[in-house]
Amino acid sequence: MSACIFCKIIKGEIPCFKLIETDKTIAFLDINPLSRGHALVIPKFHGEKLLDIPDEHLTDILPIVKKVAKAVGTDNYNILQNNGRLAHQEVDHVHFHMIPKPNQAEGLGVGWPQQKTDMDQLKVLFEDLKSRI
Amino acid sequence: MSACIFCKIIKGEIPCFKLIETDKTIAFLDINPLSRGHALVIPKFHGEKLLDIPDEHLTDILPIVKKVAKAVGTDNYNILQNNGRLAHQEVDHVHFHMIPKPNQAEGLGVGWPQQKTDMDQLKVLFEDLKSRI
Repeated sequence: MSACIFCKIIKGEIPCFKLIETDKTIAFLDINPLSRGHALVIPKFHGEKLLDIPDEHLTDILPIVKKVAKAVGTDNYNILQNNGRLAHQEVDHVHFHMIPKPNQAEGLGVGWPQQKTDMDQLKVLFEDLKSRI
Repeated sequence: MSACIFCKIIKGEIPCFKLIETDKTIAFLDINPLSRGHALVIPKFHGEKLLDIPDEHLTDILPIVKKVAKAVGTDNYNILQNNGRLAHQEVDHVHFHMIPKPNQAEGLGVGWPQQKTDMDQLKVLFEDLKSRI
């Protein structure tokens, strides 16, 4: 945690283009953007993945993502939060990307390897998940 | 709105594998999954894009996404919310995908066309955005 680059940004030890700050959350520009206006919204609470963040910190996130998207003024945009290396997470402190998609070339590339719908298999999964919620 | 497939699911006019329901939100399995456990979390409030959803509905979303991810029990996963056709939105009612990423072949494909960092350009953008937040 002391080596976490986002914790250092939160503490002001590393500068950032800070757009919004509340008691629980900050939003700042990504300095390696995929498109103009690409920003990050992160909880001040240090946690690696979504499941590590307490609900009372999660509730603060999306209204701030919305504020940032509104200020950027983009019609097409993706909100993305990656968990784990396989899922393209690079910094181990939860962060939500707000990535404008102005055209095909810029912004997030979305690959969608849709699987065949198998209702029987879904029903089995559903019963299993329901028993654990 | 009367033609919105997600509003019909919310009203129970179309069946779904419903995992969680609160007064503001429902979570259910995507029947065209990218991977096992791919689920959708949607506000009951009808809005096309993130900016159309009132904050008091947005605050309910992420704790439910977290509950679903926990029940599925996945280490690697992406949370994605698309806005606009260019950004891969297909149903015009805000929905958050929780997409497990068990391996390279299944789950979300992430394309990352990172741009060259231009600190001067970022600073101009930052000043512009700050004046509108």
